[in-house]
Amino acid sequence: MAIKDVKAGLRNEEGISTVLGILKQSFGERFQTGQSFREQHAHTTTYLPAQLPDGVVFAESADDVKAVVRACAEHRVPVVPFGVGSSLEGQVNAPSGGISIDFSRMNKVLRISPADLDVTVEPGITREELNRELRDTGLFFPIDPGANASIGGMTATRASGTNAVRYGTMKDNVLSLTVVTADGEEIRTAQRARKSSAGYDLTRLFVGSEGTLGVITSVTLRLQGIPEKIGGGVCAFPSVKAACDAVIMTVQMGIPVARIELLDDVQMRACNAYSKLSYPEKPTLFLEFHGTEETVALQSAQFAEIATECGGDDFLWTANAEERAKLWHARHNAYWASRALAPELDGLSTDVCVPISRLAECVAETQADIAEQGLLAPIVGHAGDGNFHVLVLFDGKDPASVEKVEAFIGRLNHRALAMDGTCTGEHGIGQGKMSFLEEELGGAVHLMRTIKQGLDPKNIFNPGKIFRNAE
Amino acid sequence: MAIKDVKAGLRNEEGISTVLGILKQSFGERFQTGQSFREQHAHTTTYLPAQLPDGVVFAESADDVKAVVRACAEHRVPVVPFGVGSSLEGQVNAPSGGISIDFSRMNKVLRISPADLDVTVEPGITREELNRELRDTGLFFPIDPGANASIGGMTATRASGTNAVRYGTMKDNVLSLTVVTADGEEIRTAQRARKSSAGYDLTRLFVGSEGTLGVITSVTLRLQGIPEKIGGGVCAFPSVKAACDAVIMTVQMGIPVARIELLDDVQMRACNAYSKLSYPEKPTLFLEFHGTEETVALQSAQFAEIATECGGDDFLWTANAEERAKLWHARHNAYWASRALAPELDGLSTDVCVPISRLAECVAETQADIAEQGLLAPIVGHAGDGNFHVLVLFDGKDPASVEKVEAFIGRLNHRALAMDGTCTGEHGIGQGKMSFLEEELGGAVHLMRTIKQGLDPKNIFNPGKIFRNAE
Repeated sequence: MAIKDVKAGLRNEEGISTVLGILKQSFGERFQTGQSFREQHAHTTTYLPAQLPDGVVFAESADDVKAVVRACAEHRVPVVPFGVGSSLEGQVNAPSGGISIDFSRMNKVLRISPADLDVTVEPGITREELNRELRDTGLFFPIDPGANASIGGMTATRASGTNAVRYGTMKDNVLSLTVVTADGEEIRTAQRARKSSAGYDLTRLFVGSEGTLGVITSVTLRLQGIPEKIGGGVCAFPSVKAACDAVIMTVQMGIPVARIELLDDVQMRACNAYSKLSYPEKPTLFLEFHGTEETVALQSAQFAEIATECGGDDFLWTANAEERAKLWHARHNAYWASRALAPELDGLSTDVCVPISRLAECVAETQADIAEQGLLAPIVGHAGDGNFHVLVLFDGKDPASVEKVEAFIGRLNHRALAMDGTCTGEHGIGQGKMSFLEEELGGAVHLMRTIKQGLDPKNIFNPGKIFRNAE
Repeated sequence: MAIKDVKAGLRNEEGISTVLGILKQSFGERFQTGQSFREQHAHTTTYLPAQLPDGVVFAESADDVKAVVRACAEHRVPVVPFGVGSSLEGQVNAPSGGISIDFSRMNKVLRISPADLDVTVEPGITREELNRELRDTGLFFPIDPGANASIGGMTATRASGTNAVRYGTMKDNVLSLTVVTADGEEIRTAQRARKSSAGYDLTRLFVGSEGTLGVITSVTLRLQGIPEKIGGGVCAFPSVKAACDAVIMTVQMGIPVARIELLDDVQMRACNAYSKLSYPEKPTLFLEFHGTEETVALQSAQFAEIATECGGDDFLWTANAEERAKLWHARHNAYWASRALAPELDGLSTDVCVPISRLAECVAETQADIAEQGLLAPIVGHAGDGNFHVLVLFDGKDPASVEKVEAFIGRLNHRALAMDGTCTGEHGIGQGKMSFLEEELGGAVHLMRTIKQGLDPKNIFNPGKIFRNAE
């Protein structure tokens, strides 16, 4: 049960107090222990209760990070990295207290190589800042998880988002990392070559490790050329099944869609109401194509045929940027449209991911479950990956409402797992999904714990995330 | 120095003798200890001396693998997985003796899902067998390391090959694994969803771990639709620099070449002699395009423009399968053509990989080094990835010749590392590149060792590979 999992851990009061003293001395104004700073750094965009760190270091260099890690390691005090706080499963909470490392001042582009299509950045840069810096190079960083997250945070949670179907997830786009490990030293996980068979893939081990194995101090990313032309389109379908069939055919035919997003009827109703639109309130696919004038037109025509075959309405598409923005407006505002359905309620965004052959079934069963429980919960899916989100609107102050949501999330995850899916396609485990991870991977979690113990023997790195605290 | 690294490890004679008895009893005829079986299972296609296992189990199921691992774990005896023995850095050698697990009988396709574009196979199936089995589905598995390697072996060494530039390497194409771990239990690293943020990426940790962390018992792979049309082409350039410039422009423009291979002038001379062809004996790119009639033609035309701009000769290309086979004949036979330059000599195939902006420089410096040393050593590169192979022809029985080659390989690796490259793009570390791994990643190797110790505390899994034996 997701919410009940969030317990406070044991606090090492003596160690914390010692480290507070050390950091005050070393960092002066760049170390803050005031309530408002602490609250800002436990803020999560989730339903999970905030658990505040004891202090916040505003790091400006890898040396700062080393100094914090060394002090915390010596006194067994938790270290919690903080990007912009957009994680959804409590990743920045501090259940055992400790020190939050704020990366907002480590937001520089360190180098760019247009010939190699790669860039090295400090972890605090956000993806929008990065893309602004890249603009003159003709290159862009494609991963878009929705929020303007930091690159370090996206790396730590193995983020993906709308155009992962074309460009992959963070695991596919991080070439190399530097990381401060438990001994306070900085290591580099890989050289900058595009591929390597040199030893264990430490890069991928740190991508998605949610700050539990070390603190990321720089990220080398693959980049893509900005497409010459971007096309966008929208198509409504009579059922989720029909829409998913169109997705499967699109993927099978190898049409390189950049985005293919599924909004269910409830979500479309919310979008219409919020943005004063008049889309059919039916399951709808939003598509984006990246290429040249010719290939975008070709891909759009191919998809239109598929849509017709699957019983879809007319496929509206355009390669005009302004019209595309209009068509996609509903998708871009989906989250706020959903919240506006019931502004007085809390919103809980959860995600699962299944093989795409099971997506229609998983979404349909989930919709039936929502209806049966009388929940208000629009669904948005990154359909090309089999990944979907349910935004459950509920009253967080009403225990009965909370209990109902917890039971729903339990069923949603069991359903996805039974279909050979995963309890999270992109949000991570954090505090919210620890029990589902155990269900999903069983014995493999023992291996993960062994790795955690080996690399972080004092359990200082983001304790109480991914695994239940042994303490 | 590569060759001197290959030392025998300490042998646990008592344990080995006990395990031989246990396995004879359990496996009968499926356990062989005869000299010829042992020799076959230490055969490597490399310059490295063979180090024989003490016996070979022909596994037929994961339960067989568990039984072997349990016996070997109890008595601290090495376990060396064996696919087809095509690894190049001594990965199947048994420096401390022990048991080879032969996977040739575990070669079944366990399931296929055309809708999900994925398949689960036993590790002993070779890539050609797999593609034969897939033919009716319209799908194929794209990774092609040259040799008809087993999927298990390709997974273990993080193989890639000619079309990695389009389809990625094994790390990008393995969705999930089952693995027998040190306690003799089988775990699954991931569900079958196309992406996941659920805990540490154990899949990618095992991909490329060269049998040192556990024994792979099944592999779930991503598949691709067989392209409607395949185009092929060849283009000679006045210099390696000009050819590499064409590669960089191709990648920067986002032309989705399926293969872009560089053969140097020595290699082209070898190909002409071997296959009685009359290609210009100049640095030459071999290309392949996957798509439709239209896109293959479009991409070929785009590349032709780039080639002209970079000073290349006419770009010969065709979408006719037979003509394409003729154009590519030279590339396909490059290895044998090289060996035929001096059939009496030994051949040592080594690889490094650098950022593509440094490829021309790295190849040119290596050619100068070869010339200066009077070596015979054609170069073939997977240029789109910055990865290239040098096939050094030398007399393995002449210590002076061996020493010269070792010194050359040392310089080659230092050169690649200095250019932010890796000591191996696709062959792995095995026994041959342990010292270069240390040079390349330094402190990160300490983390790898920690992981190894945690997951294989008795050091039974392929000891003496990747890391020097502590024994």
